[in-house]
Amino acid sequence: MEITIYLAGQIHDDWRNDIKNKAKSKSLPLHFVGPQENHERSDHIGVDILGDQPNKLFIDDAASSINNFRTQLLLEKSDAVIALFGENYKQWNTAMDAGLAIQANKPLILVRPESLIHPLKELSNQANITVETIDQALDILAYVYE
Amino acid sequence: MEITIYLAGQIHDDWRNDIKNKAKSKSLPLHFVGPQENHERSDHIGVDILGDQPNKLFIDDAASSINNFRTQLLLEKSDAVIALFGENYKQWNTAMDAGLAIQANKPLILVRPESLIHPLKELSNQANITVETIDQALDILAYVYE
Amino acid sequence: MEITIYLAGQIHDDWRNDIKNKAKSKSLPLHFVGPQENHERSDHIGVDILGDQPNKLFIDDAASSINNFRTQLLLEKSDAVIALFGENYKQWNTAMDAGLAIQANKPLILVRPESLIHPLKELSNQANITVETIDQALDILAYVYE
Amino acid sequence: MEITIYLAGQIHDDWRNDIKNKAKSKSLPLHFVGPQENHERSDHIGVDILGDQPNKLFIDDAASSINNFRTQLLLEKSDAVIALFGENYKQWNTAMDAGLAIQANKPLILVRPESLIHPLKELSNQANITVETIDQALDILAYVYE
Amino acid sequence: MEITIYLAGQIHDDWRNDIKNKAKSKSLPLHFVGPQENHERSDHIGVDILGDQPNKLFIDDAASSINNFRTQLLLEKSDAVIALFGENYKQWNTAMDAGLAIQANKPLILVRPESLIHPLKELSNQANITVETIDQALDILAYVYE
Amino acid sequence: MEITIYLAGQIHDDWRNDIKNKAKSKSLPLHFVGPQENHERSDHIGVDILGDQPNKLFIDDAASSINNFRTQLLLEKSDAVIALFGENYKQWNTAMDAGLAIQANKPLILVRPESLIHPLKELSNQANITVETIDQALDILAYVYE
Amino acid sequence: MEITIYLAGQIHDDWRNDIKNKAKSKSLPLHFVGPQENHERSDHIGVDILGDQPNKLFIDDAASSINNFRTQLLLEKSDAVIALFGENYKQWNTAMDAGLAIQANKPLILVRPESLIHPLKELSNQANITVETIDQALDILAYVYE
Amino acid sequence: MEITIYLAGQIHDDWRNDIKNKAKSKSLPLHFVGPQENHERSDHIGVDILGDQPNKLFIDDAASSINNFRTQLLLEKSDAVIALFGENYKQWNTAMDAGLAIQANKPLILVRPESLIHPLKELSNQANITVETIDQALDILAYVYE
Repeated sequence: MEITIYLAGQIHDDWRNDIKNKAKSKSLPLHFVGPQENHERSDHIGVDILGDQPNKLFIDDAASSINNFRTQLLLEKSDAVIALFGENYKQWNTAMDAGLAIQANKPLILVRPESLIHPLKELSNQANITVETIDQALDILAYVYE
Repeated sequence: MEITIYLAGQIHDDWRNDIKNKAKSKSLPLHFVGPQENHERSDHIGVDILGDQPNKLFIDDAASSINNFRTQLLLEKSDAVIALFGENYKQWNTAMDAGLAIQANKPLILVRPESLIHPLKELSNQANITVETIDQALDILAYVYE
Repeated sequence: MEITIYLAGQIHDDWRNDIKNKAKSKSLPLHFVGPQENHERSDHIGVDILGDQPNKLFIDDAASSINNFRTQLLLEKSDAVIALFGENYKQWNTAMDAGLAIQANKPLILVRPESLIHPLKELSNQANITVETIDQALDILAYVYE
Repeated sequence: MEITIYLAGQIHDDWRNDIKNKAKSKSLPLHFVGPQENHERSDHIGVDILGDQPNKLFIDDAASSINNFRTQLLLEKSDAVIALFGENYKQWNTAMDAGLAIQANKPLILVRPESLIHPLKELSNQANITVETIDQALDILAYVYE
Repeated sequence: MEITIYLAGQIHDDWRNDIKNKAKSKSLPLHFVGPQENHERSDHIGVDILGDQPNKLFIDDAASSINNFRTQLLLEKSDAVIALFGENYKQWNTAMDAGLAIQANKPLILVRPESLIHPLKELSNQANITVETIDQALDILAYVYE
Repeated sequence: MEITIYLAGQIHDDWRNDIKNKAKSKSLPLHFVGPQENHERSDHIGVDILGDQPNKLFIDDAASSINNFRTQLLLEKSDAVIALFGENYKQWNTAMDAGLAIQANKPLILVRPESLIHPLKELSNQANITVETIDQALDILAYVYE
Repeated sequence: MEITIYLAGQIHDDWRNDIKNKAKSKSLPLHFVGPQENHERSDHIGVDILGDQPNKLFIDDAASSINNFRTQLLLEKSDAVIALFGENYKQWNTAMDAGLAIQANKPLILVRPESLIHPLKELSNQANITVETIDQALDILAYVYE
Repeated sequence: MEITIYLAGQIHDDWRNDIKNKAKSKSLPLHFVGPQENHERSDHIGVDILGDQPNKLFIDDAASSINNFRTQLLLEKSDAVIALFGENYKQWNTAMDAGLAIQANKPLILVRPESLIHPLKELSNQANITVETIDQALDILAYVYE
């Protein structure tokens, strides 16, 4: 049985490839989806498709509209969500995606460093499980197949 | 017709009283609910009710469980949500609450300073409206009664 | 038992007052809600609250965001919807509101002149009932109390 | 991962073939569904299957009942919706379909010419994204696979 | 706490008044709603409001559209449903209303004579409880307040 | 694209085979499901699996519990429903299944002879389409693939 | 703002009166509902209303059908649920009610003695909060009004 | 047509293999999912993945969070649920899973020995069917394919 996982979180390093490779090496029938990982492409997708916008506000809004279209579609097709937080960036879109997933009854794994316990406490309490590493998140997914 | 509004966001200043007073001065039949605004009480409510916890992680988790109980109950009873973001604090619970509200089909007003346009772009795009001041948020609520 | 009705449709004449007065004269405990009926106010509400916008597209989008906030909130609080179409104006927002109401399982009365039978045929088929006059729509509401 | 797209809008030219061909040339695993595109067949399907009807009203209603059956079934099987508006025709069924899709939480791309900004403003504001060409709509779908 | 009950079933005798009077004599805060009980009015309501129809089929369909509007609205406002079956009449609308109530998660009491055990067996099995008299149905409602 | 159809209705003749054969001869990718068609087996399935029951009431209830399990499971997996009524039998389970399908937003085709127009008028009005023959029902399904 | 709480759990002592009295002494606008607390009445309600049953199995089933009608109706009208477990009795209906509440998105407080940590661990993990005393549960409800 | 069944219940003997083997011997296209069946692994999965916990309460809570993640994901992917109760163990998680399944509209078969009629009466009444043996449960599943 294939399970589809939405990988919510920052797109500034290649943590998603890490998790995909580890899943592959364990031969787990997991299918991963997520946001556009090319940061520049993600920020300019609005202008790329819709054309020039009047100012920074509307450049951002145009990009977000397309990124949210993608997220809404893929989140709906997913069976569970992993939301990763790190010490950099605001990551409010990750927290919003986690809220969307919880309300849509998608089981949620939160990955965050120990240093973020306090500011993520409400989200951690609503997630099914909170872990500190990607390996732990993958262990949980592997456990579903045991 | 009375409308109930959940006021999501930080609890470090008295912006909620500000909005309540302005609503009262306009004689709008608005009923506001929201999180515990006493910051210390909010952080210690877990220990206050459940007793001592093994360490900071569990102190935070205990507090969050009670704060999330309150939020879930009051959000469900609300007709709309105002989510306020400022330049301080992580505010991931506010972003999560916004995600919960969007998925539950509650109309959402986002209040944020101009400086946060970029990091809040996805959330802003999913909210019904984004404004920069509480007065604007209240103007929108007043408009529902015009 | 009070019933709340959302009155979807154009805001260029005072058909809503007509229906409200007739309901009052029949002493029916109906509560009517609907969009902003001052056309100029409706078109400028975005600029009025959010300030100047770069061009006509964004002026319209700002106004719509606030009008949609109002519609989403009031539609959710309604028990049924009356959607009125006439021979003037595009009225696509009315058709969208009808679609929103149908999917949300709100019973729907369509009011339209005979001349619009063909272009409104799919919407008419999905509505509970199609009538040609406001008086007929009110007769249906009165019938609920018989 | 295959994605199914419902193509809402007029059936007077072959814009759907255009989008299908472009998707094929890009080798995107998209599956398109939509209404009956043979206009005459669409208008007469009621009489074709149900037999003669008393007058034009009932001819239209019979056709719509079958067209709505098709739309409801295919919309439910779709992952996202593209709704196209042009300068001709009333297109109220397209606006209704868009409303149905929004309320059913299906992500929505609106395609409309610049000339229709004002009358489509509420629908545009509720859609995830508004574009002016079919190529832009397809760019957004392609982006989901990047 | 007031509870609203939808009384589904035939309209050829005054069983609804019977149940209302018994509820009143027990001083139970029950609020009863239901279909139009004047049989002639119920059958002619389509013609009464919409005007003459081409033939019997459309006379019936017009009446049903208004009766279904009423039922959909009142069923949604109800907390529970009583569906009464007797030995006369087809009563397929009662069985449909029961199906609508079950799927909408409204608790359902079925009232039917012993003679109808076999043909109502599937409906009886899906109802919360099956009884043979109105008094028993009222006893169950009274029990909710004990 | 395969479409699954639930065939609700009496099990006293082989109308389901008729529809399956016609679908096959048209090479339509339709998948049909429905209730147990062996009448005796359907009535005795409770006793067959659960063992002897105290009396007729409980024999019927035991059978219905298993038949309803089957219907609930298969209805949920279906994309649309055909409900057939004839002049014999009470057919209240068919009417209930139709109500369950409508409330679950499954598109519904009603098949009934002209003689049953009046007693099925509310159900007919809530169904997407009403036809008089199985061939017409199949024509509608074929139309979805045109 | 009044909040309605369903009190799930055993009916062998008067813990519900205890919680009601404490809420009253704190002047909290809480409204409590719950199952029939007279144990004998609860077990015999089936026979009391429906008459003699063939054996113990059916006596129990008849009682349960009426008790479940009551629970389903009152749970739906509640804003939150308190589920109390003690060291005696099987209490599977309490655990089922908790599952029903969780899936219906009703916030849930679990009350259980320390001795039951292990067997209640999955339910405790899904509840919003687990406490050991009724006073703690009431403290949480009082906190919603702070 | 493949049907997926979630097997809820105790993990102290190999009843799930029994049911899987019998399904295989009947060549039924059933796909079974369920909880971790290695009891020690199930109890230690929290510590195994998340590391040491402060005390027994938190060891149990950590394990439950991962077991509940698995259950929520697999239950959502299932078409029906079998919940088995025996005379040993508290089995409150089984009762909770049954409640979750009922509220999520998944058809439910309850398997329990005669000795547990009374304490399981409410759950039995809410399940679609109650049987005493695994063979009977499998007979019901086989019946869906007849």
